[in-house]
Amino acid sequence: MNYPGKAKKQFKKELISHANRGMELEHIINDANAYYLDKNIAIIYKKPTPINIVKIDYDKKRITDAFFKEASTLDYNGVYKGLYIEFDAKECNNKTSFTLRNIHDHQIKHMERILEHHGICFLIIGMNCRYFLFDGNTLIDFINNNDRKSIPYSFIVENSFEIKYNYLKGLDYIEALDRLLEVKYEKR
Amino acid sequence: MNYPGKAKKQFKKELISHANRGMELEHIINDANAYYLDKNIAIIYKKPTPINIVKIDYDKKRITDAFFKEASTLDYNGVYKGLYIEFDAKECNNKTSFTLRNIHDHQIKHMERILEHHGICFLIIGMNCRYFLFDGNTLIDFINNNDRKSIPYSFIVENSFEIKYNYLKGLDYIEALDRLLEVKYEKR
Repeated sequence: MNYPGKAKKQFKKELISHANRGMELEHIINDANAYYLDKNIAIIYKKPTPINIVKIDYDKKRITDAFFKEASTLDYNGVYKGLYIEFDAKECNNKTSFTLRNIHDHQIKHMERILEHHGICFLIIGMNCRYFLFDGNTLIDFINNNDRKSIPYSFIVENSFEIKYNYLKGLDYIEALDRLLEVKYEKR
Repeated sequence: MNYPGKAKKQFKKELISHANRGMELEHIINDANAYYLDKNIAIIYKKPTPINIVKIDYDKKRITDAFFKEASTLDYNGVYKGLYIEFDAKECNNKTSFTLRNIHDHQIKHMERILEHHGICFLIIGMNCRYFLFDGNTLIDFINNNDRKSIPYSFIVENSFEIKYNYLKGLDYIEALDRLLEVKYEKR
C-alpha cells in the first residue's frame, strides 16, 4: 500500500525538524562566539556561506541569480590564545552512530592540512541531546584505521570532550577545548 | 560648463579600471594561495563574500534575491607555521597617499582584537606598481598617533615589507611575512 500524501507530509516534517536542529546548533554556537568576543576570550566567526553569483542587477544593487557552492573548508575559524582554530558543527539524528557521509572528502583533506600546520581543528557533534568536541586527529585516526562508514556513539563518548551548555555563554566549547589543549600539550 | 555625458563615460571608465585593478590584486593573491597550498607552505583562503539571502527558489535550488553585506573582518585568513594569519588586499590609485577610508572602523577594531590574541594581521597594499605588506600594528599605531585621514606613500615604503612578484608563485607575500616575523620575534 502507498500513502504518498502521508509520506510527503512526514518527509516535510522531518526536513523542517532536521533544519531546525541544524539551525539550533548553529544558533547556540553563534551565541557562544558572541560571548567570547564580548568577553575578549576568543575571536571566532562563522564563515559566510559560499555561493556562486550568476547575475547582479547593478541598478538595484541586488543579486538576482546565484547558487550554493559546496564548502571545501570548515564553517568556523578564528584565533584563541594565538592558536589557529577551525571547526564544523554537526547535528546527528541517529542515536547509535555518526555517519561519515556528514563530512566531505575535501573537508577531511583540509583538516589533515590544518593539523599538519599546527592548527587546531575539530567537530562539534550534537547527538542524543549532548554535545561533544571531537578532535580532528581522533577523527582522522578513526577513518584511517577503520573500514566503517560511521562512528559508534560509544566511541564518540569515550574519545571526545563533552561540551557543557550554559545559559549565559551558550555552548561553552572553549572550556572543552582547554581540556583538549591540556592533553595535547602534555603529550609534547 | 557641464559635460554630463563625458563625465559619466569617464566615471564608468574609472569604475571598470578600478574594479579590474582590484580583481588583479585578488587574482595574484589567489595564485599565491594556490601555490602555498600545493607546496604545503601555508593554508590561506579568501573568505566567501558575505551576502544576505532574501529569497530562495527551493525547486530550482537557486537564490533569486540577495544583497551584499559589509564585511566586518578581513578578506583572507588561515594558518602559517601554527600562527593565525588574517589580511586584506587594498589597491590604491592615488600615487602619494593611501586613504584610510579604505578600511572600515569595525575592521580596525577587528585587527586590534586579532593582534591582542597574538594573531598576525596585515594589509597587502598595491600602490605605484609595487606591493607592500603593511603590519596591523604599524597601521594601528599610525591611526592612534596621527590625525591624518591618509598614510603618505613614503611612510608605507619606509614602514612595510615590500612583496616581490614571482611568475611562478604569484605575489609571494609569505616571503615578506617571514621578514616581518623575524623582526617581531627578535623584539620579544
